[in-house]
Amino acid sequence: MTDDPFRRRRAIEMRTPRLTRFQPHTPLGEGVEFDVIRRMLERWGPRARRIGDDAAVISSLGERAVVVSTDTSIENVHFKREWLRPDEIGYRAAASALSDLAAMGAKPLGMLVAMGIPDGWRQHLDALSDGIGDASGAADAPILGGDMSRANELSLTFTVLGTARDVLARSNARPGEHVYVTGRLGGSGAALAALQAGKEPLPSYRERFAHPVARIAEAVWLSDNAASAAIDISDGLAADALHVASASRVKIVIDVAKVPTFEGVSPMDAVRSGEEYELLATSAQELDTSGFERRFKIPLTRIGTVERGEPEVRLMSNGEQLEVPRGYLHFE
Amino acid sequence: MTDDPFRRRRAIEMRTPRLTRFQPHTPLGEGVEFDVIRRMLERWGPRARRIGDDAAVISSLGERAVVVSTDTSIENVHFKREWLRPDEIGYRAAASALSDLAAMGAKPLGMLVAMGIPDGWRQHLDALSDGIGDASGAADAPILGGDMSRANELSLTFTVLGTARDVLARSNARPGEHVYVTGRLGGSGAALAALQAGKEPLPSYRERFAHPVARIAEAVWLSDNAASAAIDISDGLAADALHVASASRVKIVIDVAKVPTFEGVSPMDAVRSGEEYELLATSAQELDTSGFERRFKIPLTRIGTVERGEPEVRLMSNGEQLEVPRGYLHFE
Repeated sequence: MTDDPFRRRRAIEMRTPRLTRFQPHTPLGEGVEFDVIRRMLERWGPRARRIGDDAAVISSLGERAVVVSTDTSIENVHFKREWLRPDEIGYRAAASALSDLAAMGAKPLGMLVAMGIPDGWRQHLDALSDGIGDASGAADAPILGGDMSRANELSLTFTVLGTARDVLARSNARPGEHVYVTGRLGGSGAALAALQAGKEPLPSYRERFAHPVARIAEAVWLSDNAASAAIDISDGLAADALHVASASRVKIVIDVAKVPTFEGVSPMDAVRSGEEYELLATSAQELDTSGFERRFKIPLTRIGTVERGEPEVRLMSNGEQLEVPRGYLHFE
Repeated sequence: MTDDPFRRRRAIEMRTPRLTRFQPHTPLGEGVEFDVIRRMLERWGPRARRIGDDAAVISSLGERAVVVSTDTSIENVHFKREWLRPDEIGYRAAASALSDLAAMGAKPLGMLVAMGIPDGWRQHLDALSDGIGDASGAADAPILGGDMSRANELSLTFTVLGTARDVLARSNARPGEHVYVTGRLGGSGAALAALQAGKEPLPSYRERFAHPVARIAEAVWLSDNAASAAIDISDGLAADALHVASASRVKIVIDVAKVPTFEGVSPMDAVRSGEEYELLATSAQELDTSGFERRFKIPLTRIGTVERGEPEVRLMSNGEQLEVPRGYLHFE
């Protein structure tokens, strides 16, 4: 199924970024955060290359592209200490970085961790390490190096490296393709809403928030089954669909009623819920959703279509168009 | 000169870390910071691999090893805002990360930057970006990706990737080899001493502190000329020599009088001075120091020898042994 020559060509293009002269950035979405990045890219000019996907393709390793991504979790920005145990904070920061490999259809080679450790965190370093180790073990992503500093706020920056046969770039979606999502959405958002209101979340919601799973094996399956583009749902389904739409210059239409939700979560709350770390993927072919579910014990659901048009996301419900919620943006 | 079969074998070993079953960590030196890392490594067990060099070898790219390293600079830990302009802070953070590639004898493939940006820094983002761009351009290390977050303190984490034909691992020093250092030492330490005392440093010292140069081309020359081990002098010559001694399980003897210093800096202050980003390297053969100097316009100086014995550094001056100053250690 990966022998479609057009996909092959695109995949090979992605694999050899250092060899092509013209290396456009992936078009970014709207918002102050992206304005800031756009401005940096202007200043950097040709010194920045192919910015804007979940991970960068740096070279090839035999038939596979080597991809790399970096992701920071900062106390009081990405989480609050009172919401999670130290091991959960370590696990979650690593898993959310590893999720960027899944978004590219890549298997991990390993990861590096740069830690900024405040004095008050010294006593929790064992637990923090254990959580990082759990995430490393779960994704088969060995810890290859790192950096440790004193700091005034806890920060954990993971750099994850992996290889992919066919890169599921954000910019690969094409009109006429189907839109799929893995798993069920809304648990993380429901947990976060409870925590922010000072309430105890339901255990299933809390578990989802504290122990997201990077969908590595699922992403490899999607890639092997001719999915074209993918993104992990860290900003919310609607916001991340818009990233794919912007990068691929297409319109994405989602049938909200089809979005699989956590029990007790409304479809719109599920669409809005961030830090889910499920995958949104597009595919020209219909995917074997029941085969996927048998293998991974989570659903794979067709929720929409890719259409020709200005980059946008349309959320439809019974033929009516709903307002698109925005994802979390830094600096707003 | 790189056809010595023993060196070849070691280089190939370093290139294929995923293929060997036994992947020991590089022995670490003494101190609380390293105790913390050792404790993490114990907890991680086989999930951590070959930790302890300036960069990790992740795979091979044809005949070359792919190496990667991550390095964080945090405001009020690694620098104070009043000491440097924003562009210098960006430049310096990137250059210090790129210096880890030099320490491995690697040419850059590129870098990723994760930024934690406090609100008060928003107005300086252009200058910060320009400094990062300057470092990227100077080392021919394109910016391949990154991550941006709000934060309460400025943190810049650079992940640098490169390739090396022969990796200059810290653990490669062997008894009988010569010890060399690039450039002149002490400028950075003299600048820092002035700044910490609230004084204006001499312009040459300040320039050295604000604009360190990652010795990339010099490192490739060292590697091509059969150097075995290298490290960049970020903790001070004596402290970094001890890292090599620990990693290689050898004794390193340095003749302090031979250490090339900045004008007005005493040899012992030069030996103590950190964040120099010059290279210490070992080599079984005598190196062509005048050829090096003609090419790079900085000296390459033989300053000592590698000897058999318990891992330690001996600083000698006129036959007398001097006390070894310790490098900066986080958490002490």
